[in-house]
Amino acid sequence: MFESHPYTVGALLFALLAYLWSIFRVGQARGKYGVQAPAVTGDPGFERAFRAQQNTVEQLILFLPLLALAAWLWGDRAAAIYGAVWSVGRILYVEGYAREAGKRALGFYLSGLLSMIVLLALIVTLVMRHF
Amino acid sequence: MFESHPYTVGALLFALLAYLWSIFRVGQARGKYGVQAPAVTGDPGFERAFRAQQNTVEQLILFLPLLALAAWLWGDRAAAIYGAVWSVGRILYVEGYAREAGKRALGFYLSGLLSMIVLLALIVTLVMRHF
Amino acid sequence: MFESHPYTVGALLFALLAYLWSIFRVGQARGKYGVQAPAVTGDPGFERAFRAQQNTVEQLILFLPLLALAAWLWGDRAAAIYGAVWSVGRILYVEGYAREAGKRALGFYLSGLLSMIVLLALIVTLVMRHF
Repeated sequence: MFESHPYTVGALLFALLAYLWSIFRVGQARGKYGVQAPAVTGDPGFERAFRAQQNTVEQLILFLPLLALAAWLWGDRAAAIYGAVWSVGRILYVEGYAREAGKRALGFYLSGLLSMIVLLALIVTLVMRHF
Repeated sequence: MFESHPYTVGALLFALLAYLWSIFRVGQARGKYGVQAPAVTGDPGFERAFRAQQNTVEQLILFLPLLALAAWLWGDRAAAIYGAVWSVGRILYVEGYAREAGKRALGFYLSGLLSMIVLLALIVTLVMRHF
Repeated sequence: MFESHPYTVGALLFALLAYLWSIFRVGQARGKYGVQAPAVTGDPGFERAFRAQQNTVEQLILFLPLLALAAWLWGDRAAAIYGAVWSVGRILYVEGYAREAGKRALGFYLSGLLSMIVLLALIVTLVMRHF
């Protein structure tokens, strides 16, 4: 499946790098705000970085199967576009949330909301194919 | 792999919808109990909705590879039955937990415990096939 | 893909068992330290067990796509070695963290840090293949 979907593989690697970025930002915030593990509460600045990474885990678990299904049903390029937009959306989410809770909205639209739309569109594609 | 496993694809989509449902219930609980992000504590009603969704993430990450392995080793229908029962179990878990922490037991048996049994059964299948 | 990668399948099952172990340790800690769901805070001993499992979720979501990509690009044995070392690393992480926050370092190097190196090495492999 990877062999025939080179752009999707690229988008997958980009998404994993965006996820690593969210992890790196939590480590940075631990140092900056002096929050020692296992604590995950303290300065709101740390808590926003932590929630941004946690939310990225929650979205990544939805993104990975959707990316595979999109590659299968819509082809390499369409899946890669989904993956690239999602990855940019995640970086905007993490960076926006780091500044202010309200500034995560754009990143959410481009990743979380996008994934919901992709899920519904995949179901429509499958239903239309079979009836 | 998707092409030859249509029922499993259907069960996968059902599982992802069940997961989205758990996310939607957290958003609803944020409004109902007035818990603003990035906070994840407050009214126990919110905390139960949040824990139900977090637990669904923890189970989904186990479910996805098990579903793929079950489709490979046991075929499309057996994997789809696992996926459908798991998805119903997750909805029961989320709805039960929303009412009372003790009411999540049935949902746990049909998803978390089921996955543990599926993992052990997959190992037995592989061992029997090779010896 | 599973059929042609038997060692990787074995490593995948090992990784899922290591993850179940981290879940089992949280259940045990709930009993030992008297922390009732939905609470996830209380005795530091419980909090360390809980954070170890949460961290394993965060690492597993990265590990699963990397294992598949490694199997594709590097072959069955190389992917299986990554999976086996990662799984041992996770058990060391969970057991080290249970004792003391500082004792999770070795487990982190063999799983979290290893995955970062694998991700970068996969990108290098792909770039070298195409240029």
